[in-house]
Amino acid sequence: MFKKILIANRGEIALRIIRTCREMGIKTVAVYSTADRDSLHVRFADEAVCIGPPVSKQSYLSIPSIISAAEVTGADAIHPGYGFLSENAEFSQICADYGIKFIGATADQINSMGDKATAKATMKLAGVPVIPGSEGLLESIEQGKKLSAEMGYPVIIKATAGGGGRGMRIIRSESDFEKAWNDARTEAGAAFGNDGLYLEKFVEEPRHIEIQIVGDQFGKVCHLSERDCSIQRRHQKLVEETPSPIISPELREEMGQAAIKGAQAIGYEGAGTVEFLVDKHGKFYFMEMNTRIQVEHPITEEVTDFDLIKEQIKVAAGVEISGRNYTPKLYAMECRINAEDPANGFRPSPGKITVLHMPGGHGVRVDSHVYTGYTIPPNYDSMIAKLIVSGQSREEVITRMKRALQEFVIEGIKTTIPFHIKLMDDPGFKSGHFTTAFLETFDFSKL
Amino acid sequence: MFKKILIANRGEIALRIIRTCREMGIKTVAVYSTADRDSLHVRFADEAVCIGPPVSKQSYLSIPSIISAAEVTGADAIHPGYGFLSENAEFSQICADYGIKFIGATADQINSMGDKATAKATMKLAGVPVIPGSEGLLESIEQGKKLSAEMGYPVIIKATAGGGGRGMRIIRSESDFEKAWNDARTEAGAAFGNDGLYLEKFVEEPRHIEIQIVGDQFGKVCHLSERDCSIQRRHQKLVEETPSPIISPELREEMGQAAIKGAQAIGYEGAGTVEFLVDKHGKFYFMEMNTRIQVEHPITEEVTDFDLIKEQIKVAAGVEISGRNYTPKLYAMECRINAEDPANGFRPSPGKITVLHMPGGHGVRVDSHVYTGYTIPPNYDSMIAKLIVSGQSREEVITRMKRALQEFVIEGIKTTIPFHIKLMDDPGFKSGHFTTAFLETFDFSKL
Repeated sequence: MFKKILIANRGEIALRIIRTCREMGIKTVAVYSTADRDSLHVRFADEAVCIGPPVSKQSYLSIPSIISAAEVTGADAIHPGYGFLSENAEFSQICADYGIKFIGATADQINSMGDKATAKATMKLAGVPVIPGSEGLLESIEQGKKLSAEMGYPVIIKATAGGGGRGMRIIRSESDFEKAWNDARTEAGAAFGNDGLYLEKFVEEPRHIEIQIVGDQFGKVCHLSERDCSIQRRHQKLVEETPSPIISPELREEMGQAAIKGAQAIGYEGAGTVEFLVDKHGKFYFMEMNTRIQVEHPITEEVTDFDLIKEQIKVAAGVEISGRNYTPKLYAMECRINAEDPANGFRPSPGKITVLHMPGGHGVRVDSHVYTGYTIPPNYDSMIAKLIVSGQSREEVITRMKRALQEFVIEGIKTTIPFHIKLMDDPGFKSGHFTTAFLETFDFSKL
Repeated sequence: MFKKILIANRGEIALRIIRTCREMGIKTVAVYSTADRDSLHVRFADEAVCIGPPVSKQSYLSIPSIISAAEVTGADAIHPGYGFLSENAEFSQICADYGIKFIGATADQINSMGDKATAKATMKLAGVPVIPGSEGLLESIEQGKKLSAEMGYPVIIKATAGGGGRGMRIIRSESDFEKAWNDARTEAGAAFGNDGLYLEKFVEEPRHIEIQIVGDQFGKVCHLSERDCSIQRRHQKLVEETPSPIISPELREEMGQAAIKGAQAIGYEGAGTVEFLVDKHGKFYFMEMNTRIQVEHPITEEVTDFDLIKEQIKVAAGVEISGRNYTPKLYAMECRINAEDPANGFRPSPGKITVLHMPGGHGVRVDSHVYTGYTIPPNYDSMIAKLIVSGQSREEVITRMKRALQEFVIEGIKTTIPFHIKLMDDPGFKSGHFTTAFLETFDFSKL
């Protein structure tokens, strides 16, 4: 087992990793920018090295600074957390070159999932369902109609140069094809000076469902079921839950097996997440694979009793897993508490926390690096706490989450707590029937 | 279901009850003494009523004040927590007379378990094992020898007027009986002016093991397994855990059935605890029954996923239970964090908490009513937090507990945290092999 792990990250995830290392009897090295000298991850690590100013390129993204810190402190492994260098193939490779174990995917594995086209092709080859489409530009209306008939309507045509919905048309039957094609071409040509179109199966009422997997160095991969991350604002997850209200045991197993197949196709090692879109018919399509720990991993921990950081460290050290899959025995949900003003377009609200009281009690977990008197620097992402609640039913989790949110006192800054409280009372959210578009029509004004 | 519950208590248990009421959509009324006006239970309740000065008899033990507060606020039930009026038969009866549901045992049930002799006789009649003994004073050496032969050695003779170990002798064989008898009589006569002796089976290497039970209004009683509370200092529990390292599944079921039998014998309603001594041979003996929620109830919640306060409220409202018993699916432990100086005879250390940081993360729960800037009044018991940790093995729980204790920062006062940290490293404690006498030889000096 490793003797000393350097944590190449900050904030709650750095503290999260330190906690598990302590429980495993592994020494820890924190690295920090000058903006983070008062952060708890610095206080609770066995050693701490300042690696630069509050410019990420010169600190948390500086490979030479981090490798130097590892060399100086004699760390035999590096945990990258999420974000920053966690999916940086070059960093993974350099760690390997220096004989420091990177607790994450190898450079090859990261590269194979780093670019969307390669990832999709790899997964398709492995037999994982991907969103069917034209694989390149459409050449004619006839080709489009033929493909659409094969895939089944609805389909969507998109401008290859597009963005913001322009040059995009959803087509629900063959009789609409020609008009949509002509309109999209004209719009794309006018908007982008490029009227090239491609075609995809349109995923109706999509949910964002991801499967947690863990692979070891012996080719074994298991899954720990899904997380439903459909509550997003501008592709930023705000609330995650498990089990998903829309996933049956059969679909869970089918998606779990697909995720395992995909991971095995690239010889995946470590903890990872395979993200899918699931449509209203229960069909699922590969979106991308995250070759790292996710922000929302604690909800999986709460329903399976696994410590996923411990699993990451164990498989990185060469421990073999059982290969058994795990299904949720409870319900769990996470609300991301961000230093943002939800009533004003989620504008960041850094500053000093003058009063802090965190909720506690049965079924309540808080992962956070802040404390009374802590000043949130403006330089980093605004997540200051993860409130994770578990219970015996989705209903119990929602009422408990609301209770915990109401008990959470943070003064001195604005936070997303009022948004989450309103969400817990929302009939649409409570019903469990919603799509990734749910927050597009949410009223953020009365918080 | 109740509309509004008055909580006739303070501190962490008052907050604990408010949390569950909120989750159940039940309004809450806090009562408080003038010393507790800044307590969180006052802040988080829907209403709060000041019931008197910081003299318990004039506030938390004042039945007229509490009944008045319930009448004024229109509460339809009272939860007494633990301590104070929780096992007061008169209060239970007065609540009933006023048509306010007492969330606890009836006056009859409390009375039947309130006095040790009656409780023991009731349990014996119900077929629950009790410590065998002379049932009154011994009349002669011959009677003592005869009884001892029936019960089996070792036995213990005790002065009926005794205390502090005087007039007490452990007898390991019949040949030692006469000398022990004469010595004890002389000692008792000299010390207390009363040389009356009684005899009991001597429980060797006892562990304090209690069974959590829940009974409904329809005569159904279930058990939720045991808690091992052997780590005590002067009969004050400091650490509790479940499952007990010394209880086999067979013994658990046997003790669980005995507890159910005892509870059914008095028609018990609500949550209760049947306390046993278990000797080194795995024989168990009834000690007493607590007709209320226990301080250490959260460890049972962590391993069974039940919210015991919710169960109390439900059965008080007439909900029927399934009658199924529950065995631990995890391991859990609680450390009582007291405002006491363990290096100085656990001397109380009230005062202002200048810095507070509570631990968090996977498997960590904190139940507490304190916050940064809170002043602990000197008037009440010194428990300021319960740190509850769960995990997949006893070993994982101990390492996690140590991590959480090290992360727990309380400045401004002395606490029992250093004692708990040392205990988590103690080989005897870690082995799981210890008795209720464990702390008698513990070295509190180097903390």
